[in-house]
Amino acid sequence: MCIEAYIHAVRPLNESAMAAAKERQAQLAKPPGSLGRLESLSVQLAGITGNVHNTIEKKHLLVFAADNGVVAEGVSSAPQSVTLMQTINLTRHKTGASTLCGHFGCGITVCDVGVNAEIREPRVLNRKIAYGTQNIACGPAMTREQAVQAILTGAELARETDADVIGIGEMGIGNTTTSSAVLSVLLGADVNTVTGRGGGITDQSFLKKKQVIQTAIAVNQPDPTDVMDVLAKVGGFDLAAMCGAFIGCAATRRPAVIDGFISAVAALCAYRLCPDAVHYFVPSHASYEIGYQLAMDAMGLEPLFLLGMRLGEGSGCPLAFEVLGAACAVINDMATFEEAGIDDGYLEEIREGDKFTVEGIR
Amino acid sequence: MCIEAYIHAVRPLNESAMAAAKERQAQLAKPPGSLGRLESLSVQLAGITGNVHNTIEKKHLLVFAADNGVVAEGVSSAPQSVTLMQTINLTRHKTGASTLCGHFGCGITVCDVGVNAEIREPRVLNRKIAYGTQNIACGPAMTREQAVQAILTGAELARETDADVIGIGEMGIGNTTTSSAVLSVLLGADVNTVTGRGGGITDQSFLKKKQVIQTAIAVNQPDPTDVMDVLAKVGGFDLAAMCGAFIGCAATRRPAVIDGFISAVAALCAYRLCPDAVHYFVPSHASYEIGYQLAMDAMGLEPLFLLGMRLGEGSGCPLAFEVLGAACAVINDMATFEEAGIDDGYLEEIREGDKFTVEGIR
Repeated sequence: MCIEAYIHAVRPLNESAMAAAKERQAQLAKPPGSLGRLESLSVQLAGITGNVHNTIEKKHLLVFAADNGVVAEGVSSAPQSVTLMQTINLTRHKTGASTLCGHFGCGITVCDVGVNAEIREPRVLNRKIAYGTQNIACGPAMTREQAVQAILTGAELARETDADVIGIGEMGIGNTTTSSAVLSVLLGADVNTVTGRGGGITDQSFLKKKQVIQTAIAVNQPDPTDVMDVLAKVGGFDLAAMCGAFIGCAATRRPAVIDGFISAVAALCAYRLCPDAVHYFVPSHASYEIGYQLAMDAMGLEPLFLLGMRLGEGSGCPLAFEVLGAACAVINDMATFEEAGIDDGYLEEIREGDKFTVEGIR
Repeated sequence: MCIEAYIHAVRPLNESAMAAAKERQAQLAKPPGSLGRLESLSVQLAGITGNVHNTIEKKHLLVFAADNGVVAEGVSSAPQSVTLMQTINLTRHKTGASTLCGHFGCGITVCDVGVNAEIREPRVLNRKIAYGTQNIACGPAMTREQAVQAILTGAELARETDADVIGIGEMGIGNTTTSSAVLSVLLGADVNTVTGRGGGITDQSFLKKKQVIQTAIAVNQPDPTDVMDVLAKVGGFDLAAMCGAFIGCAATRRPAVIDGFISAVAALCAYRLCPDAVHYFVPSHASYEIGYQLAMDAMGLEPLFLLGMRLGEGSGCPLAFEVLGAACAVINDMATFEEAGIDDGYLEEIREGDKFTVEGIR
């Protein structure tokens, strides 16, 4: 399938299933709206699957790993080899995100789309496009053809993943730099408003990071209206593949969970390529990185939790899967007002004259 | 045990276990602090149990049910009999909180401390102090002796509950009214700043609710420095028992999870009676009720998630238990920097000259 076919396969949500889910939520024995996001998520899930009742049994995290040539500029606190190390450690349940996947029973696929090394660990899926990108401070990160290939790689992996919900994460030293560059271009936003400290760099490196992003944009002149151009010029293989994975989830009608800053920027790219895809996105935590909220605002999304996390890897996704599971439990298992009426006889004298209405229970 | 004995049993957190947990967090292969609240919760748990490594296996929700005489003033959208109905439904896994307990494998104890009816459902624990409180708009809700009895009931139930973590919720029509009254007195805050719409009342009822709270405070003149007096005069059996449960958890060194507004006000009462207890409290969701944030600010606590919920019953607790479980998984299972170094030989040429330091991995 080509990218256009994936985009074409993304259909609007099922309105009648959503209406039926809203109707059921109104019948459940609680003040209307009192379960907040657990209600709206259940309605979104109905729109995605076409069924009022859903379950989140198979949960899966896709982690796209790639290196970024821009690390040559000294924008990162960690050496490039950490991408390789942590890519391998992700498959061994040793990192933050993979530990959480193990704890919550989520599957994980670690996909190499551009790590700057041969990887002999067989559990890392080899979809390598190149040995890292070029340095965006000097020219484009990759060719347009490579960007297309990375997006397709992500879309295909999402399509092939057998799961009820898919989280989308990354591992790549230097990718907060590329993400800030992409976000700055897509939103027309000042580099200072979209750039954070990533893994925790010094004041001097932070200044350098912002200068490098400004240089990268000036050198490459990406066209803000052409997402593929932006990804190719100042993005990365991880970002492009993640963008594709978001579209792949939407094309196959599965919820796609956004992790932190980098994942949110990739989701924004997917949204710009395919606006209907946003209805399939589920946020997780509010990332500590400053660009996160701008990316979310641009998609009209709000995070579910506030954990002060900025690790990446998809580490916010497993908890979001649990929130989705909670949303399913409520709509599936709570009693309706009718069912909640207790028919034990002895209540009759008390209930007399009372009406158990949808107006509320507290 | 008397209340003073419970309060005396609440000891400060174990500083050396907390230092060891912080030390381990610093060694884990991630940028320092990048797992945010998952890190600080693991440190808090270490301080509570005295062990760096903890697990959240037995999770339990305590729900205290009671009626409030103030409903005679027309402050609630639902009839008083709903307290009884939902108290029984809580034991049948039909309500919001009990559905979530079922989904996440949490135990639940539903304790009648003052429902205005005989309850014949044997799964409701009978600790009834009276058949509802008196109307606070006309005089005190209960005697001081009854307030003491309710606090002790909650403390004892918490102490007797065999669990690694305990959530504290409630069921009681009218209890947002009593909670707002208690909060207004304890904080010296204007009634308008602490009163929300509860289960969803009309504009007219909302005005009435605020007037009733003002009247209740004027009539009873509770002493803001005497928590027992405040609870007895403008509180409720549910609030007092929950206050005791928070102290009971702290006295037995278990984390106590705060649900929404009412639970937060009960926690604040516990904190005022016993300041060290606050270190055992774990927040859950940011309640939609306006008084919630004021209560949390007064304890220096911040919610973990943002689900727009306002159901009560302890419905926010099961997800908070999952966040605590995630915090344990991270500190128990993540690799340290030393362990993360990959000893596969073929990495040598790349790693040369690199140092995998605590400065960060992205």
